Amino acid sequence: MNVAPTPRRTIWLQATEPPCVQVIDQRHLPHVLQIADIRSSSTAAQAIAEMWVRGAPLIGATAAYGVYLAVWEAARQADPDGYLARQLTLLAHSRPTAVNLQWAINRQQQALIASEDWETKEQIALEMAQSIVEEDVHICYQIGRYGLGLIEEIAAQKPGVPVQILTHCNAGRMATVEWGTATAPIYLAHQAGIPVHVWVDETRPRNQGARITAWELAEAGIPHTVIVDNVGGHLMQHGRVDICLVGTDRTTRQGDVANKIGTYLKALAAWDNQVPFYVALPSSTIDWQLRDGLEIPIEERGAEEVHFIQGLDPDQSVVRQVRLTPAQSEAANFAFDVTPARFVSGLITERGICAASEAGLRALFPEIPQSDRDSNS
Amino acid sequence: MNVAPTPRRTIWLQATEPPCVQVIDQRHLPHVLQIADIRSSSTAAQAIAEMWVRGAPLIGATAAYGVYLAVWEAARQADPDGYLARQLTLLAHSRPTAVNLQWAINRQQQALIASEDWETKEQIALEMAQSIVEEDVHICYQIGRYGLGLIEEIAAQKPGVPVQILTHCNAGRMATVEWGTATAPIYLAHQAGIPVHVWVDETRPRNQGARITAWELAEAGIPHTVIVDNVGGHLMQHGRVDICLVGTDRTTRQGDVANKIGTYLKALAAWDNQVPFYVALPSSTIDWQLRDGLEIPIEERGAEEVHFIQGLDPDQSVVRQVRLTPAQSEAANFAFDVTPARFVSGLITERGICAASEAGLRALFPEIPQSDRDSNS
Repeated sequence: MNVAPTPRRTIWLQATEPPCVQVIDQRHLPHVLQIADIRSSSTAAQAIAEMWVRGAPLIGATAAYGVYLAVWEAARQADPDGYLARQLTLLAHSRPTAVNLQWAINRQQQALIASEDWETKEQIALEMAQSIVEEDVHICYQIGRYGLGLIEEIAAQKPGVPVQILTHCNAGRMATVEWGTATAPIYLAHQAGIPVHVWVDETRPRNQGARITAWELAEAGIPHTVIVDNVGGHLMQHGRVDICLVGTDRTTRQGDVANKIGTYLKALAAWDNQVPFYVALPSSTIDWQLRDGLEIPIEERGAEEVHFIQGLDPDQSVVRQVRLTPAQSEAANFAFDVTPARFVSGLITERGICAASEAGLRALFPEIPQSDRDSNS
Repeated sequence: MNVAPTPRRTIWLQATEPPCVQVIDQRHLPHVLQIADIRSSSTAAQAIAEMWVRGAPLIGATAAYGVYLAVWEAARQADPDGYLARQLTLLAHSRPTAVNLQWAINRQQQALIASEDWETKEQIALEMAQSIVEEDVHICYQIGRYGLGLIEEIAAQKPGVPVQILTHCNAGRMATVEWGTATAPIYLAHQAGIPVHVWVDETRPRNQGARITAWELAEAGIPHTVIVDNVGGHLMQHGRVDICLVGTDRTTRQGDVANKIGTYLKALAAWDNQVPFYVALPSSTIDWQLRDGLEIPIEERGAEEVHFIQGLDPDQSVVRQVRLTPAQSEAANFAFDVTPARFVSGLITERGICAASEAGLRALFPEIPQSDRDSNS
């Protein structure tokens, strides 16, 4: 069903009038590769809320382009300031947990102050969106280089045998503009000829692992095996995982990690079996204001994502939704959980690897002011 | 779609000639209640292997009736001893992990020694199957009574507020003849008017929680919420689980517990958050020969159970299977994991609750000879 060639990036701008941002609509993967048009800031908010795009960095990139579209629209309104404020609020509320969302909007807002002129603002917002996108590509590549060192160390201890990596959800290139965060080291290891094998958690309820990470790895020709989310502990008990590599949507300044629901359970198993558990993150996902991860508000999504699941009907080659639960049963759908820093072996950032602690993070990011140190939220 | 009234038991004998055992075919729940006929010992083995029936106690009951059918058939063969031996081997190999399977077959074999006469053997096998079934009902009820004490204690500490119970897979009445193991205390608490609410892990890949436990609880009118297997840790971090109650397919003499894949991850989360984690078991699932649970061979089932999932097509009211993974991806399917005794708060047996340790188990079962103490397997 995958008719078009796979784009190298997950988001790009069509230089049309009005401007049109295009993204891979990830709701249809792995069965259909569909490109979606985002022609307005409201559609950008919809694309984030409805998860056409997901993953903290790509949400940030989409929000950055969303602000550009909002500025373009505002310039053509009677009350441009009021319009822009409304659209930025809409964008900011499109997903509750991803800190990159607010981060990208803030960067745009700070840049936009430079001019009162709406034509100049348009140009500023466009350039900022593009630089956020290019930065993301560079940051992911740097994360990949540092994480590659961890894989090389393991490979040196077991020559000729694949390094066994477990990942949860999709912190892959489809969660970013290119490369991914947790997958960047894997792609670079594969390119360097190091044999790797990836255990891919399917990641219920939305199956980003089975749908997106598996599809990405298959596209790249990297050996991988999809497992249900219940399996990782068993594999680690039996020495079949050398390292866990996951992403994060939000990292507190003491190194607590809010990532896709179920990450915490894998970190516990890694801890109990002395398997290194690393979290890959662009520094934009660090929330320096927050110390205790358990205070992060956790998005609760609709119960229908638990009641129903989508897949390919093999007889008719159409994507269908089927119901998994009895009609009389309730369901609840928490999207993230928090892995306390004590279960995290290290954080892989674009500046290097550090301990999951305030001291570790501050050593890599000394420019962050310490004034918030005593407040927790 | 549930047209027939729900049978109170999960297995029963039709006194026909030849005899016919009937079971609820659990592969079609919760969408269709279908009764299956088991008219031969080979079909009994098939019903176990293909999971028309599942759950350690019900597997034992089905195997016991399977032996009865095998004896009935053998009595009508030229070489009855050879035929019976072949059929018992077939039954014994129908599922690799459940210790009840071999236990039920052994009990039948020991009873059958009493007579050389095949007509008498038929009668012996029938009576033994029936007594295994009645014993199971009694044992589950006793487990329920002891487990009820735990729920009553929690309820006393939070009057008027539901006791929050998390369960994994189905250790419910559909895993036994009646009552269930982990669910027996819940049913008794509900009958006693104690408010309870059950978090039901969907339990991928076969979704016994979302399909069967949820259906059972809905039938009984017990408030419950289906969650994906990733959620339990988050709930426990936030104080939303008072107690975990799960079953087991095999328990070693030091209290290690082999249960549905993913149980270990929930036990880790319970341990990290000081949530009591209890395992309910009939003593028939105790493997006194084995000390270290990590030596239990873990059944690896077909990858198609991960690639595909079955559910109700809401538009057409038919049960369909859809594919979840990319066509190029591998999948692996481990059916059980082992929860080390150190993460188990206690074992709920038909003789009372004990510590998950050899001392704890031996105090409840002093009649078990100690001669195997030094061997591990």
